[in-house]
Amino acid sequence: MSNASSRSWLDRIRIVLVSTSHPGNIGGVARAMKNMGLSDLALVSPRCAPNERDAISRASGADDVLGNLTVHGALRDAIADCSWVVGCSARSRTLPWPMLTPREYGMRLPNEITHGGEDGRIAILFGREDTGLTNEELHHCHAHVHIPTNAEFSSLNLAAAVQLMAYETRLAALMPETTPATLTATPEEGHWDHPLASQEETERMMVHMEQVLITLGFHDPENPRLLMPRLRRLFARTRLDKMEVNILRGILSAVERQSHPRPKSRKS
Amino acid sequence: MSNASSRSWLDRIRIVLVSTSHPGNIGGVARAMKNMGLSDLALVSPRCAPNERDAISRASGADDVLGNLTVHGALRDAIADCSWVVGCSARSRTLPWPMLTPREYGMRLPNEITHGGEDGRIAILFGREDTGLTNEELHHCHAHVHIPTNAEFSSLNLAAAVQLMAYETRLAALMPETTPATLTATPEEGHWDHPLASQEETERMMVHMEQVLITLGFHDPENPRLLMPRLRRLFARTRLDKMEVNILRGILSAVERQSHPRPKSRKS
Repeated sequence: MSNASSRSWLDRIRIVLVSTSHPGNIGGVARAMKNMGLSDLALVSPRCAPNERDAISRASGADDVLGNLTVHGALRDAIADCSWVVGCSARSRTLPWPMLTPREYGMRLPNEITHGGEDGRIAILFGREDTGLTNEELHHCHAHVHIPTNAEFSSLNLAAAVQLMAYETRLAALMPETTPATLTATPEEGHWDHPLASQEETERMMVHMEQVLITLGFHDPENPRLLMPRLRRLFARTRLDKMEVNILRGILSAVERQSHPRPKSRKS
Repeated sequence: MSNASSRSWLDRIRIVLVSTSHPGNIGGVARAMKNMGLSDLALVSPRCAPNERDAISRASGADDVLGNLTVHGALRDAIADCSWVVGCSARSRTLPWPMLTPREYGMRLPNEITHGGEDGRIAILFGREDTGLTNEELHHCHAHVHIPTNAEFSSLNLAAAVQLMAYETRLAALMPETTPATLTATPEEGHWDHPLASQEETERMMVHMEQVLITLGFHDPENPRLLMPRLRRLFARTRLDKMEVNILRGILSAVERQSHPRPKSRKS
């Protein structure tokens, strides 16, 4: 239980709140974070000001968390440097996605911290008070986390949801040795020859892929169906390393060159 | 994951709030409880009315929990029918006491539910917002639970503390099969020939014991030092069954008869 290492661990976890409406909830989240030793708070398109009186009042002294928060216009900017992104969701929508309990999240965390590399960050996304995260936002995640609430009374306060995830994070940071051996024995979580790709690298690849698929006439943005979400899920589940992303992008570039042949005729 | 059995399980867990000051916190606790499927709320000497507007507002629909709560003038009345009592405490005071993490609490819960018998209840005590539980209140507990907060910012909101303990309770109820075998293999938690004594039975024995010790001149209530707390801790740690309590009380009665010999002279 090294205090120094658990501290640097906790500094690498980012809480991301998407389109929060109530400043009191932002304050409550700041308090819940600081109670568990977390400090990196990011807001995406907030629908209120995080320095309103209610925020400061409910932060109850976690003013430094509020003072250092970052505000982003788009989710992808808030998670660009993250190697693992999990989204809290009431249930799986549209398309089933890798789903973890908060405890399983905590059990995977030590490996994700290790394999994310020195600069890697881990993001936990929380959605709107009323409607949660959109499908598109959920599709940016490697995994979804469902907090097992009472089905007849499932609406957890935003700060309470953050409290539970921050608690699981802190336990994982304080006791990484409790990670079951079975989880570290799978190939993708054991020793690895390249660092995992960052969210930004994977995202650029997905954007590239979509362009290529459109160019190919395989993907119709006017009638997208679930093509891109299914591809996102595939790569989110697989956990790509940097080398693999480079290879895939190389393939996409090669396809692109094939689709836009140079003016010079091939037969010449 | 039997829903019916986890429901009856959860019905046997009582949240006990001691001398709460803010009605909003009682409402927040009711919401946190209902979110995790708990319904039995007991207040001991509350310093506010649980039906004030703030309580109902923060309960956010958990009105049934507020409507069914019980109010007690003394802690011992609130826990009389409980076979296992744990108290949430920031740290160990005066005298070290069996201390659990919230996770260890959850791991022990399935056995405690089993060995408490059909009518047994389990109580989790939470103290005042400002000063927590007193030493005397903590000495009524079989074990203390410390929520591992950031040492530099450890004041957890009352509803947040209940949320975390209710979460661990729910996980234990939903997944009793995750109880490690090592915990069930210790003699006092394995098969047992008699049900565990209730808190009331043990408490009557302790009162009886104290009287007998005073009668014996062994215990001076004017200068109690830590005698009774040490005895309480001993029996709390040992987990007495009903038969053992009967035996101990029989011994105490025998000592009493010895200390107050009948008028008739022994030599006659």
